Amino acid sequence: MHILVSNDDGVYAPGIAALAEAMLPFGQVTVVAPRENRSAIGHRKTMHKPLRIDPAPFPVKGVAAFATSESPSDSVAVALLGFIKEPIDLVVSGINRGANMGQDLTYSGTVSAAFEAVIWHKPAIAFSLVDFSENADYRPAAAIARQVVALGLYRNLPPLTLLNVNVPPLPLEQIKGFKIVRQGLRTYNDALITRIDPYGRPYYWIGGEAPSGDMTEEGTDLWATHNGYVSLTPIHLDMTSYAVMRELAAAGVERLVPGQVE
Amino acid sequence: MHILVSNDDGVYAPGIAALAEAMLPFGQVTVVAPRENRSAIGHRKTMHKPLRIDPAPFPVKGVAAFATSESPSDSVAVALLGFIKEPIDLVVSGINRGANMGQDLTYSGTVSAAFEAVIWHKPAIAFSLVDFSENADYRPAAAIARQVVALGLYRNLPPLTLLNVNVPPLPLEQIKGFKIVRQGLRTYNDALITRIDPYGRPYYWIGGEAPSGDMTEEGTDLWATHNGYVSLTPIHLDMTSYAVMRELAAAGVERLVPGQVE
Repeated sequence: MHILVSNDDGVYAPGIAALAEAMLPFGQVTVVAPRENRSAIGHRKTMHKPLRIDPAPFPVKGVAAFATSESPSDSVAVALLGFIKEPIDLVVSGINRGANMGQDLTYSGTVSAAFEAVIWHKPAIAFSLVDFSENADYRPAAAIARQVVALGLYRNLPPLTLLNVNVPPLPLEQIKGFKIVRQGLRTYNDALITRIDPYGRPYYWIGGEAPSGDMTEEGTDLWATHNGYVSLTPIHLDMTSYAVMRELAAAGVERLVPGQVE
Repeated sequence: MHILVSNDDGVYAPGIAALAEAMLPFGQVTVVAPRENRSAIGHRKTMHKPLRIDPAPFPVKGVAAFATSESPSDSVAVALLGFIKEPIDLVVSGINRGANMGQDLTYSGTVSAAFEAVIWHKPAIAFSLVDFSENADYRPAAAIARQVVALGLYRNLPPLTLLNVNVPPLPLEQIKGFKIVRQGLRTYNDALITRIDPYGRPYYWIGGEAPSGDMTEEGTDLWATHNGYVSLTPIHLDMTSYAVMRELAAAGVERLVPGQVE
């Protein structure tokens, strides 16, 4: 098996080294990831400028690693579009520094790398550790990642569907198990912060507090990880609200005459 | 009513001027949008650097416009987090140069601006014209946008749900009507293109042909616009695949012991 590893914290982050090492028992491992941190970059496809791709030093022996100048999803795209010559069987992304749950998914570079993989018809798993501290221990999440891949759960996913995995910040023996859960509800606590530059002009930060969320709603990723479980959430790119489609149909929208305002 | 208008083609694009003008009959209109084209940027939240926000010249009389240095979703975030002092009732994004259908949604800056609006609890509608030509006529799509807002369809949407509207490239009188449809299936025709710089080093473009897709699958956005209809697709941020959740539960995943590889 040939596994491609990417992330959004950058090719030199500790989480991607832990994930690449955890994948080595399965065969060949290749890393293609941004050379800089690209957290919260979203599903960016870079078309307005070219990319650089360079070999990168990597701390795991036997792993070929490349650093790209652009986004996580660009990194996966160039690998799958031919920069990596050997066929790729599975794409894993992470281990992210910090959770990717609830409404985080469309912001997340880690998850967007997995979006890109399924768009190019490759199975994909995104791994995140619910710990944003500088000295987080990625070993338990790496053991979970190895187990999830060994189980082959990615093999029978429908088209345009990936697995999103969040691991609680606990020693492996204190992790209680796995929960198959839906996306929960995030609360963002952003604030607009105004500063004045040395020339007297304002500039702005999107700052504030870290996101929180509803940890009490059973059956969600936020609830599972808060209670010591690994969350497993199958994610697909169909964002259609079928319930609202039925409501709009009942409201008679399809009988309107285009451009006619009553 | 106070309507915020944003986009991803940039504050100087013709589509946003057409959309802002179409919103004027409803009350106050304020534009906050990227100062440069930010197509396919995804749902980026800029946290690693500050933003600039400056007044921008705008061709529609009575509309206050601001240009931001960063992404479409950043533009909506700063407006809703307090840069715009007056309360905002509705966020509209577009009119995008080119379609946003099928798997385009997570890439799309236009749609991501609407994601950001619903995250901050504001109703939102994304408008795109299925025409990527330089001299596209935005007037029919602007008339449709005015009609969609006049109907108040955005008023009863559930939390974290927006309307995604694509308008076919036709004169208004040739548009056949509205279809309430799901996301269809895109096919991307990207190719990795290698160039050599003046110093002998390779660099790479994500190039290739424009995306295509399945226009024959009835009930999808691609099918509706291909057949001369405006597509109306309710989109929500819950990307959970409930069908796959049931399969994983049946496979006994919740009985696993963490870290144990057989």
